Amino acid sequence: MKFEEKLSKIVGKNESLLCVGLDVDKEKIGSVTPLEFNKKIIDETKDLVCAYKLNMAFYETLGKEGYTLLEDTIKYIPKDIIIILDGKRNDIGNTAKKYATSLFETLNCDAVTINPYLGSDGIKPFLDYKDKCSFILCRTSNSSAKDFQDLKTNDKSLYVHVAEKIKQWNTNKNAGAVVGATYPNELKQIREILGKDAILLIPGIGAQGGDVEKTIKYGTNEEGENAIINSSRGIIYSNKPRESAKKLRDEINKYR
Amino acid sequence: MKFEEKLSKIVGKNESLLCVGLDVDKEKIGSVTPLEFNKKIIDETKDLVCAYKLNMAFYETLGKEGYTLLEDTIKYIPKDIIIILDGKRNDIGNTAKKYATSLFETLNCDAVTINPYLGSDGIKPFLDYKDKCSFILCRTSNSSAKDFQDLKTNDKSLYVHVAEKIKQWNTNKNAGAVVGATYPNELKQIREILGKDAILLIPGIGAQGGDVEKTIKYGTNEEGENAIINSSRGIIYSNKPRESAKKLRDEINKYR
Repeated sequence: MKFEEKLSKIVGKNESLLCVGLDVDKEKIGSVTPLEFNKKIIDETKDLVCAYKLNMAFYETLGKEGYTLLEDTIKYIPKDIIIILDGKRNDIGNTAKKYATSLFETLNCDAVTINPYLGSDGIKPFLDYKDKCSFILCRTSNSSAKDFQDLKTNDKSLYVHVAEKIKQWNTNKNAGAVVGATYPNELKQIREILGKDAILLIPGIGAQGGDVEKTIKYGTNEEGENAIINSSRGIIYSNKPRESAKKLRDEINKYR
Repeated sequence: MKFEEKLSKIVGKNESLLCVGLDVDKEKIGSVTPLEFNKKIIDETKDLVCAYKLNMAFYETLGKEGYTLLEDTIKYIPKDIIIILDGKRNDIGNTAKKYATSLFETLNCDAVTINPYLGSDGIKPFLDYKDKCSFILCRTSNSSAKDFQDLKTNDKSLYVHVAEKIKQWNTNKNAGAVVGATYPNELKQIREILGKDAILLIPGIGAQGGDVEKTIKYGTNEEGENAIINSSRGIIYSNKPRESAKKLRDEINKYR
Protein backbone atom coordinates (compact mmCIF):
# COMPACT_ATOMS: atom_id res chain seq x y z
CA MET A 1 0.00 0.00 0.00
CA LYS A 2 1.28 3.48 -0.81
CA PHE A 3 2.02 5.78 2.12
CA GLU A 4 -0.63 8.36 1.23
CA GLU A 5 -3.28 5.65 1.10
CA LYS A 6 -2.26 4.17 4.46
CA LEU A 7 -2.25 7.65 5.97
CA SER A 8 -5.62 8.53 4.52
CA LYS A 9 -7.19 5.34 5.91
CA ILE A 10 -5.95 5.82 9.46
CA VAL A 11 -6.75 9.55 9.45
CA GLY A 12 -10.30 8.57 8.51
CA LYS A 13 -10.59 5.67 10.95
CA ASN A 14 -9.27 7.53 14.01
CA GLU A 15 -10.49 10.95 12.82
CA SER A 16 -7.07 12.26 13.67
CA LEU A 17 -4.06 14.14 12.30
CA LEU A 18 -2.26 13.64 15.61
CA CYS A 19 1.12 11.95 15.81
CA VAL A 20 2.45 11.02 19.24
CA GLY A 21 6.22 11.18 19.63
CA LEU A 22 7.47 8.15 21.54
CA ASP A 23 10.59 9.91 22.83
CA VAL A 24 11.07 7.73 25.87
CA ASP A 25 13.60 9.06 28.37
CA LYS A 26 14.72 6.85 31.30
CA GLU A 27 15.24 9.94 33.46
CA LYS A 28 11.56 10.81 33.20
CA ILE A 29 9.64 7.52 33.40
CA GLY A 30 10.06 6.44 37.00
CA SER A 31 10.22 2.72 37.78
CA VAL A 32 8.68 1.22 34.61
CA THR A 33 10.91 -0.03 31.78
CA PRO A 34 11.07 2.03 28.57
CA LEU A 35 9.20 -0.72 26.71
CA GLU A 36 6.44 -0.84 29.34
CA PHE A 37 6.22 2.94 29.13
CA ASN A 38 5.91 2.91 25.33
CA LYS A 39 3.34 0.09 25.39
CA LYS A 40 1.21 1.95 27.91
CA ILE A 41 1.27 5.12 25.76
CA ILE A 42 0.37 3.10 22.67
CA ASP A 43 -2.45 1.28 24.50
CA GLU A 44 -3.88 4.57 25.69
CA THR A 45 -3.66 6.48 22.42
CA LYS A 46 -3.90 4.02 19.51
CA ASP A 47 -7.50 4.98 18.67
CA LEU A 48 -6.63 8.69 18.77
CA VAL A 49 -3.62 9.01 16.46
CA CYS A 50 -2.71 8.62 12.80
CA ALA A 51 0.98 8.06 13.52
CA TYR A 52 3.69 7.42 16.06
CA LYS A 53 7.07 9.10 15.64
CA LEU A 54 10.13 7.56 17.25
CA ASN A 55 13.03 9.97 17.56
CA MET A 56 16.06 7.73 17.20
CA ALA A 57 18.29 9.79 19.50
CA PHE A 58 16.29 8.61 22.52
CA TYR A 59 16.82 4.98 21.51
CA GLU A 60 20.46 5.27 20.43
CA THR A 61 21.44 6.77 23.76
CA LEU A 62 20.48 3.43 25.38
CA GLY A 63 22.97 1.50 23.25
CA LYS A 64 22.16 -2.04 22.17
CA GLU A 65 19.24 -2.18 24.61
CA GLY A 66 17.86 0.86 22.76
CA TYR A 67 17.98 -0.95 19.46
CA THR A 68 15.93 -3.82 20.90
CA LEU A 69 13.52 -1.30 22.41
CA LEU A 70 13.13 0.34 18.99
CA GLU A 71 12.36 -3.02 17.36
CA ASP A 72 9.96 -4.10 20.11
CA THR A 73 8.12 -0.78 20.10
CA ILE A 74 7.74 -0.89 16.32
CA LYS A 75 6.35 -4.44 16.57
CA TYR A 76 3.82 -3.36 19.20
CA ILE A 77 2.31 -0.55 17.11
CA PRO A 78 -0.92 -1.66 15.34
CA LYS A 79 -0.29 -2.37 11.66
CA ASP A 80 -2.67 0.30 10.37
CA ILE A 81 -0.93 3.18 12.17
CA ILE A 82 1.88 5.09 10.44
CA ILE A 83 5.38 4.63 11.95
CA ILE A 84 7.80 7.52 11.44
CA LEU A 85 11.47 7.02 12.31
CA ASP A 86 12.81 10.47 13.06
CA GLY A 87 16.57 10.13 12.56
CA LYS A 88 17.27 13.17 10.35
CA ARG A 89 19.74 10.99 8.44
CA ASN A 90 21.86 12.30 5.57
CA ASP A 91 24.96 11.28 3.63
CA ILE A 92 26.38 11.13 0.11
CA GLY A 93 24.52 8.91 -2.38
CA ASN A 94 25.98 5.44 -1.92
CA THR A 95 25.91 5.82 1.86
CA ALA A 96 22.45 7.39 2.02
CA LYS A 97 21.29 4.20 0.32
CA LYS A 98 22.50 2.22 3.34
CA TYR A 99 20.48 4.44 5.68
CA ALA A 100 17.41 4.05 3.50
CA THR A 101 17.77 0.25 3.57
CA SER A 102 18.29 0.31 7.31
CA LEU A 103 15.17 2.36 8.04
CA PHE A 104 12.74 1.17 5.37
CA GLU A 105 13.78 -2.49 5.21
CA THR A 106 15.65 -3.59 8.34
CA LEU A 107 13.32 -1.61 10.63
CA ASN A 108 10.38 -1.62 8.20
CA CYS A 109 8.99 1.82 9.01
CA ASP A 110 6.53 3.80 6.87
CA ALA A 111 8.32 7.13 6.87
CA VAL A 112 11.58 8.84 7.84
CA THR A 113 12.94 12.32 8.39
CA ILE A 114 16.03 13.35 6.40
CA ASN A 115 18.30 16.38 6.24
CA PRO A 116 18.71 18.21 2.89
CA TYR A 117 22.15 19.84 3.40
CA LEU A 118 23.93 17.42 1.01
CA GLY A 119 21.49 18.04 -1.84
CA SER A 120 19.67 15.73 -4.21
CA ASP A 121 22.07 12.78 -4.40
CA GLY A 122 21.64 12.20 -0.67
CA ILE A 123 17.85 12.44 -0.96
CA LYS A 124 17.24 10.24 -4.00
CA PRO A 125 18.01 6.85 -2.36
CA PHE A 126 15.19 7.54 0.12
CA LEU A 127 12.73 8.62 -2.56
CA ASP A 128 13.45 5.43 -4.47
CA TYR A 129 11.21 3.75 -1.89
CA LYS A 130 8.06 4.86 -3.65
CA ASP A 131 5.55 3.36 -1.18
CA LYS A 132 7.22 5.05 1.80
CA CYS A 133 7.43 8.74 2.69
CA SER A 134 10.54 10.85 3.32
CA PHE A 135 10.02 14.06 5.26
CA ILE A 136 12.79 16.51 4.44
CA LEU A 137 13.78 19.12 7.03
CA CYS A 138 12.66 22.46 5.63
CA ARG A 139 12.06 25.04 8.39
CA THR A 140 12.70 23.45 11.77
CA SER A 141 10.95 24.30 15.06
CA ASN A 142 14.00 25.37 17.10
CA SER A 143 15.09 28.96 17.78
CA SER A 144 18.45 28.71 15.98
CA ALA A 145 16.74 27.40 12.84
CA LYS A 146 17.30 30.97 11.63
CA ASP A 147 21.12 30.64 11.68
CA PHE A 148 21.23 29.10 8.22
CA GLN A 149 17.66 28.34 7.12
CA ASP A 150 16.75 32.04 6.94
CA LEU A 151 19.78 33.19 4.93
CA LYS A 152 18.50 34.88 1.78
CA THR A 153 19.55 34.28 -1.83
CA ASN A 154 17.81 36.40 -4.45
CA ASP A 155 15.25 37.47 -1.83
CA LYS A 156 14.47 33.85 -1.01
CA SER A 157 15.44 32.19 2.24
CA LEU A 158 17.29 28.88 2.21
CA TYR A 159 14.20 27.09 3.54
CA VAL A 160 12.26 28.42 0.51
CA HIS A 161 14.91 26.98 -1.82
CA VAL A 162 14.58 23.69 0.07
CA ALA A 163 10.78 23.82 -0.23
CA GLU A 164 11.05 24.44 -3.98
CA LYS A 165 13.32 21.40 -4.31
CA ILE A 166 10.90 19.28 -2.29
CA LYS A 167 8.16 20.35 -4.69
CA GLN A 168 10.34 19.09 -7.59
CA TRP A 169 11.21 15.87 -5.78
CA ASN A 170 7.56 15.13 -4.93
CA THR A 171 6.57 13.71 -8.33
CA ASN A 172 5.62 10.43 -6.63
CA LYS A 173 3.90 12.01 -3.60
CA ASN A 174 6.52 10.55 -1.28
CA ALA A 175 8.64 13.66 -0.55
CA GLY A 176 7.21 15.57 2.39
CA ALA A 177 8.50 18.44 4.49
CA VAL A 178 9.22 18.96 8.18
CA VAL A 179 8.07 22.43 9.23
CA GLY A 180 7.91 23.64 12.83
CA ALA A 181 4.56 24.76 14.25
CA THR A 182 6.51 27.44 16.10
CA TYR A 183 6.81 29.45 12.85
CA PRO A 184 3.26 29.86 11.43
CA ASN A 185 4.19 32.40 8.74
CA GLU A 186 6.88 30.14 7.35
CA LEU A 187 4.47 27.22 7.55
CA LYS A 188 1.91 29.13 5.48
CA GLN A 189 4.53 30.05 2.90
CA ILE A 190 5.82 26.48 2.61
CA ARG A 191 2.30 25.03 2.19
CA GLU A 192 1.72 27.54 -0.61
CA ILE A 193 4.92 26.49 -2.36
CA LEU A 194 4.30 22.76 -2.00
CA GLY A 195 0.64 22.80 -2.99
CA LYS A 196 -2.06 20.49 -1.70
CA ASP A 197 -0.47 17.13 -2.55
CA ALA A 198 2.55 17.36 -0.29
CA ILE A 199 2.38 15.91 3.20
CA LEU A 200 3.79 18.03 6.04
CA LEU A 201 5.15 16.68 9.30
CA ILE A 202 4.68 19.44 11.85
CA PRO A 203 6.38 19.23 15.25
CA GLY A 204 6.48 22.05 17.77
CA ILE A 205 2.97 21.85 19.23
CA GLY A 206 2.82 21.35 23.00
CA ALA A 207 6.08 21.63 24.96
CA GLN A 208 7.62 23.81 22.21
CA GLY A 209 4.64 26.19 22.20
CA GLY A 210 3.26 26.13 18.65
CA ASP A 211 -0.29 27.49 18.19
CA VAL A 212 -2.81 24.80 17.18
CA GLU A 213 -5.26 27.02 15.29
CA LYS A 214 -2.61 28.60 13.06
CA THR A 215 -0.86 25.28 12.58
CA ILE A 216 -4.01 23.65 11.21
CA LYS A 217 -5.10 26.68 9.21
CA TYR A 218 -1.74 27.07 7.50
CA GLY A 219 -0.35 23.53 7.62
CA THR A 220 -3.17 21.37 6.22
CA ASN A 221 -4.23 21.59 2.59
CA GLU A 222 -7.56 23.03 1.43
CA GLU A 223 -9.26 19.75 2.35
CA GLY A 224 -7.94 19.91 5.92
CA GLU A 225 -5.60 17.00 5.19
CA ASN A 226 -2.00 16.05 4.36
CA ALA A 227 -0.57 17.28 7.66
CA ILE A 228 0.70 15.15 10.53
CA ILE A 229 0.80 17.12 13.76
CA ASN A 230 3.31 15.83 16.29
CA SER A 231 3.40 16.26 20.04
CA SER A 232 5.86 14.31 22.16
CA ARG A 233 6.63 15.57 25.69
CA GLY A 234 3.27 17.38 25.95
CA ILE A 235 1.47 14.04 25.76
CA ILE A 236 3.73 11.23 26.94
CA TYR A 237 4.84 13.04 30.11
CA SER A 238 1.47 14.56 30.97
CA ASN A 239 -0.33 13.12 34.00
CA LYS A 240 -3.06 11.70 31.79
CA PRO A 241 -1.62 10.86 28.33
CA ARG A 242 -4.93 9.60 26.93
CA GLU A 243 -6.79 12.73 27.95
CA SER A 244 -4.00 14.98 26.66
CA ALA A 245 -3.97 13.15 23.33
CA LYS A 246 -7.77 13.27 23.04
CA LYS A 247 -7.85 16.96 23.88
CA LEU A 248 -5.22 17.79 21.23
CA ARG A 249 -6.79 15.49 18.62
CA ASP A 250 -10.16 17.20 19.15
CA GLU A 251 -8.66 20.67 19.13
CA ILE A 252 -6.92 19.90 15.83
CA ASN A 253 -10.23 18.65 14.37
CA LYS A 254 -12.02 21.81 15.50
CA TYR A 255 -9.86 23.87 13.13
CA ARG A 256 -9.72 21.48 10.17
CA MET B 1 43.40 13.98 27.20
CA LYS B 2 42.13 16.64 24.85
CA PHE B 3 41.38 15.64 21.26
CA GLU B 4 44.03 17.85 19.69
CA GLU B 5 46.69 16.38 21.96
CA LYS B 6 45.66 12.79 21.21
CA LEU B 7 45.65 13.59 17.49
CA SER B 8 49.04 15.28 17.63
CA LYS B 9 50.60 12.27 19.41
CA ILE B 10 49.35 9.69 16.94
CA VAL B 11 50.16 11.89 13.92
CA GLY B 12 53.72 12.07 15.26
CA LYS B 13 54.01 8.39 16.19
CA ASN B 14 52.68 7.00 12.90
CA GLU B 15 53.89 9.96 10.81
CA SER B 16 50.47 10.04 9.26
CA LEU B 17 47.47 12.24 8.54
CA LEU B 18 45.68 9.27 7.01
CA CYS B 19 42.30 8.10 8.25
CA VAL B 20 40.97 4.79 7.00
CA GLY B 21 37.19 4.55 6.66
CA LEU B 22 35.94 1.22 8.00
CA ASP B 23 32.82 1.21 5.84
CA VAL B 24 32.35 -2.53 5.82
CA ASP B 25 29.81 -3.81 3.30
CA LYS B 26 28.69 -7.45 3.39
CA GLU B 27 28.17 -7.42 -0.37
CA LYS B 28 31.86 -6.71 -0.95
CA ILE B 29 33.78 -8.77 1.61
CA GLY B 30 33.35 -12.34 0.40
CA SER B 31 33.22 -15.13 2.96
CA VAL B 32 34.75 -13.43 6.02
CA THR B 33 32.53 -11.88 8.69
CA PRO B 34 32.34 -8.07 8.88
CA LEU B 35 34.22 -8.16 12.21
CA GLU B 36 36.98 -10.35 10.77
CA PHE B 37 37.19 -7.98 7.82
CA ASN B 38 37.51 -4.90 10.05
CA LYS B 39 40.07 -6.60 12.32
CA LYS B 40 42.20 -7.54 9.33
CA ILE B 41 42.14 -3.95 8.01
CA ILE B 42 43.05 -2.62 11.47
CA ASP B 43 45.87 -5.17 11.87
CA GLU B 44 47.30 -4.23 8.49
CA THR B 45 47.06 -0.45 8.85
CA LYS B 46 47.32 0.47 12.55
CA ASP B 47 50.91 1.73 12.26
CA LEU B 48 50.04 3.81 9.18
CA VAL B 49 47.03 5.87 10.28
CA CYS B 50 46.12 8.60 12.73
CA ALA B 51 42.43 7.70 12.77
CA TYR B 52 39.72 5.27 11.81
CA LYS B 53 36.36 6.58 10.69
CA LEU B 54 33.29 4.37 10.99
CA ASN B 55 30.39 5.52 8.86
CA MET B 56 27.35 4.50 10.90
CA ALA B 57 25.13 3.83 7.87
CA PHE B 58 27.13 0.70 7.07
CA TYR B 59 26.59 -0.61 10.61
CA GLU B 60 22.96 0.43 10.99
CA THR B 61 21.98 -1.38 7.84
CA LEU B 62 22.95 -4.65 9.61
CA GLY B 63 20.45 -4.05 12.42
CA LYS B 64 21.26 -5.25 15.94
CA GLU B 65 24.17 -7.30 14.61
CA GLY B 66 25.56 -4.03 13.23
CA TYR B 67 25.45 -2.41 16.63
CA THR B 68 27.49 -5.25 18.12
CA LEU B 69 29.89 -5.00 15.19
CA LEU B 70 30.29 -1.27 15.85
CA GLU B 71 31.06 -1.90 19.54
CA ASP B 72 33.46 -4.76 18.81
CA THR B 73 35.29 -2.82 16.10
CA ILE B 74 35.67 0.19 18.40
CA LYS B 75 37.07 -2.08 21.15
CA TYR B 76 39.59 -3.57 18.73
CA ILE B 77 41.10 -0.25 17.66
CA PRO B 78 44.33 0.55 19.58
CA LYS B 79 43.73 3.12 22.32
CA ASP B 80 46.09 5.74 20.91
CA ILE B 81 44.34 5.95 17.52
CA ILE B 82 41.52 8.45 16.96
CA ILE B 83 38.04 6.97 16.46
CA ILE B 84 35.61 9.07 14.42
CA LEU B 85 31.95 8.07 14.32
CA ASP B 86 30.60 9.46 11.07
CA GLY B 87 26.84 9.67 11.64
CA LYS B 88 26.14 13.25 10.46
CA ARG B 89 23.67 13.52 13.34
CA ASN B 90 21.55 16.60 13.96
CA ASP B 91 18.45 17.59 15.92
CA ILE B 92 17.03 20.35 18.10
CA GLY B 93 18.90 21.08 21.34
CA ASN B 94 17.43 18.67 23.91
CA THR B 95 17.50 15.83 21.38
CA ALA B 96 20.96 16.62 20.02
CA LYS B 97 22.13 16.13 23.61
CA LYS B 98 20.91 12.52 23.44
CA TYR B 99 22.93 11.93 20.28
CA ALA B 100 26.01 13.47 21.86
CA THR B 101 25.64 11.20 24.91
CA SER B 102 25.12 8.20 22.67
CA LEU B 103 28.24 8.80 20.59
CA PHE B 104 30.68 10.28 23.10
CA GLU B 105 29.63 8.28 26.18
CA THR B 106 27.75 5.09 25.25
CA LEU B 107 30.08 4.39 22.30
CA ASN B 108 33.04 6.36 23.71
CA CYS B 109 34.42 7.72 20.46
CA ASP B 110 36.88 10.62 20.10
CA ALA B 111 35.10 12.55 17.39
CA VAL B 112 31.85 12.75 15.45
CA THR B 113 30.47 14.33 12.30
CA ILE B 114 27.38 16.55 12.63
CA ASN B 115 25.11 18.44 10.25
CA PRO B 116 24.68 22.23 10.71
CA TYR B 117 21.25 22.76 9.10
CA LEU B 118 19.49 23.29 12.45
CA GLY B 119 21.93 25.97 13.62
CA SER B 120 23.73 26.55 16.88
CA ASP B 121 21.35 24.97 19.38
CA GLY B 122 21.76 21.62 17.67
CA ILE B 123 25.56 22.01 17.65
CA LYS B 124 26.17 23.17 21.21
CA PRO B 125 25.40 19.86 23.01
CA PHE B 126 28.21 18.25 21.01
CA LEU B 127 30.69 21.07 21.69
CA ASP B 128 29.95 20.76 25.40
CA TYR B 129 32.20 17.68 25.25
CA LYS B 130 35.35 19.75 25.39
CA ASP B 131 37.86 16.90 25.16
CA LYS B 132 36.18 15.46 22.05
CA CYS B 133 35.98 16.89 18.52
CA SER B 134 32.88 17.60 16.46
CA PHE B 135 33.38 17.90 12.71
CA ILE B 136 30.62 19.98 11.21
CA LEU B 137 29.62 19.40 7.58
CA CYS B 138 30.75 22.48 5.66
CA ARG B 139 31.35 21.75 1.95
CA THR B 140 30.71 18.08 1.27
CA SER B 141 32.45 15.92 -1.33
CA ASN B 142 29.40 14.87 -3.39
CA SER B 143 28.32 16.40 -6.69
CA SER B 144 24.95 17.70 -5.44
CA ALA B 145 26.66 19.52 -2.55
CA LYS B 146 26.10 22.58 -4.76
CA ASP B 147 22.28 22.32 -4.51
CA PHE B 148 22.16 24.26 -1.25
CA GLN B 149 25.73 24.70 0.02
CA ASP B 150 26.64 27.01 -2.88
CA LEU B 151 23.60 29.31 -2.63
CA LYS B 152 24.91 32.84 -2.17
CA THR B 153 23.84 35.43 0.42
CA ASN B 154 25.59 38.81 0.25
CA ASP B 155 28.13 37.29 -2.15
CA LYS B 156 28.92 34.52 0.31
CA SER B 157 27.94 30.91 -0.26
CA LEU B 158 26.09 29.01 2.45
CA TYR B 159 29.19 26.89 3.12
CA VAL B 160 31.13 30.12 3.81
CA HIS B 161 28.49 31.17 6.35
CA VAL B 162 28.82 27.73 7.92
CA ALA B 163 32.62 28.05 7.98
CA GLU B 164 32.35 31.45 9.68
CA LYS B 165 30.07 29.96 12.34
CA ILE B 166 32.49 27.07 12.88
CA LYS B 167 35.24 29.65 13.41
CA GLN B 168 33.08 31.28 16.12
CA TRP B 169 32.20 27.91 17.67
CA ASN B 170 35.84 26.80 17.78
CA THR B 171 36.84 28.72 20.93
CA ASN B 172 37.78 25.44 22.59
CA LYS B 173 39.50 23.90 19.54
CA ASN B 174 36.87 21.16 19.37
CA ALA B 175 34.77 22.38 16.43
CA GLY B 176 36.20 21.11 13.16
CA ALA B 177 34.91 21.09 9.60
CA VAL B 178 34.19 18.40 7.03
CA VAL B 179 35.34 19.55 3.59
CA GLY B 180 35.50 17.33 0.51
CA ALA B 181 38.84 16.85 -1.24
CA THR B 182 36.89 16.90 -4.48
CA TYR B 183 36.58 20.71 -4.23
CA PRO B 184 40.12 22.11 -3.74
CA ASN B 185 39.20 25.78 -4.22
CA GLU B 186 36.50 25.59 -1.58
CA LEU B 187 38.92 23.72 0.68
CA LYS B 188 41.48 26.53 0.33
CA GLN B 189 38.87 29.15 1.09
CA ILE B 190 37.57 27.30 4.16
CA ARG B 191 41.08 26.79 5.59
CA GLU B 192 41.67 30.55 5.17
CA ILE B 193 38.46 31.35 7.05
CA LEU B 194 39.09 28.87 9.87
CA GLY B 195 42.76 29.71 10.42
CA LYS B 196 45.47 27.32 11.55
CA ASP B 197 43.87 26.03 14.77
CA ALA B 198 40.85 24.33 13.26
CA ILE B 199 41.02 20.66 12.39
CA LEU B 200 39.62 19.58 9.03
CA LEU B 201 38.25 16.15 8.23
CA ILE B 202 38.73 15.68 4.49
CA PRO B 203 37.02 12.80 2.68
CA GLY B 204 36.93 12.40 -1.08
CA ILE B 205 40.43 11.07 -1.78
CA GLY B 206 40.58 7.72 -3.55
CA ALA B 207 37.33 6.30 -4.92
CA GLN B 208 35.78 9.79 -5.11
CA GLY B 209 38.76 11.19 -7.03
CA GLY B 210 40.15 14.06 -4.90
CA ASP B 211 43.70 15.24 -5.73
CA VAL B 212 46.22 14.49 -2.97
CA GLU B 213 48.67 17.33 -3.66
CA LYS B 214 46.02 20.06 -3.66
CA THR B 215 44.26 18.51 -0.67
CA ILE B 216 47.41 18.69 1.45
CA LYS B 217 48.51 22.07 0.15
CA TYR B 218 45.13 23.69 0.83
CA GLY B 219 43.76 21.52 3.64
CA THR B 220 46.57 21.40 6.20
CA ASN B 221 47.63 24.48 8.16
CA GLU B 222 50.96 26.24 7.65
CA GLU B 223 52.67 23.58 9.78
CA GLY B 224 51.34 20.77 7.58
CA GLU B 225 48.99 19.68 10.35
CA ASN B 226 45.40 19.79 11.60
CA ALA B 227 43.99 17.83 8.70
CA ILE B 228 42.70 14.25 8.75
CA ILE B 229 42.60 12.78 5.26
CA ASN B 230 40.09 9.97 4.83
CA SER B 231 40.01 7.18 2.30
CA SER B 232 37.54 4.31 2.65
CA ARG B 233 36.77 2.20 -0.41
CA GLY B 234 40.12 3.02 -2.05
CA ILE B 235 41.93 1.23 0.78
CA ILE B 236 39.68 -1.38 2.36
CA TYR B 237 38.58 -2.89 -0.94
CA SER B 238 41.94 -2.70 -2.69
CA ASN B 239 43.73 -6.00 -3.29
CA LYS B 240 46.47 -5.02 -0.84
CA PRO B 241 45.03 -2.71 1.84
CA ARG B 242 48.35 -2.30 3.68
CA GLU B 243 50.20 -1.30 0.53
CA SER B 244 47.41 1.07 -0.53
CA ALA B 245 47.39 2.71 2.91
CA LYS B 246 51.19 3.01 2.98
CA LYS B 247 51.26 4.49 -0.51
CA LEU B 248 48.63 7.11 0.35
CA ARG B 249 50.20 7.90 3.75
CA ASP B 250 53.56 8.47 2.05
CA GLU B 251 52.07 10.52 -0.77
CA ILE B 252 50.33 12.74 1.80
CA ASN B 253 53.63 13.20 3.66
CA LYS B 254 55.43 14.12 0.45
CA TYR B 255 53.26 17.25 0.13
CA ARG B 256 53.11 18.27 3.81
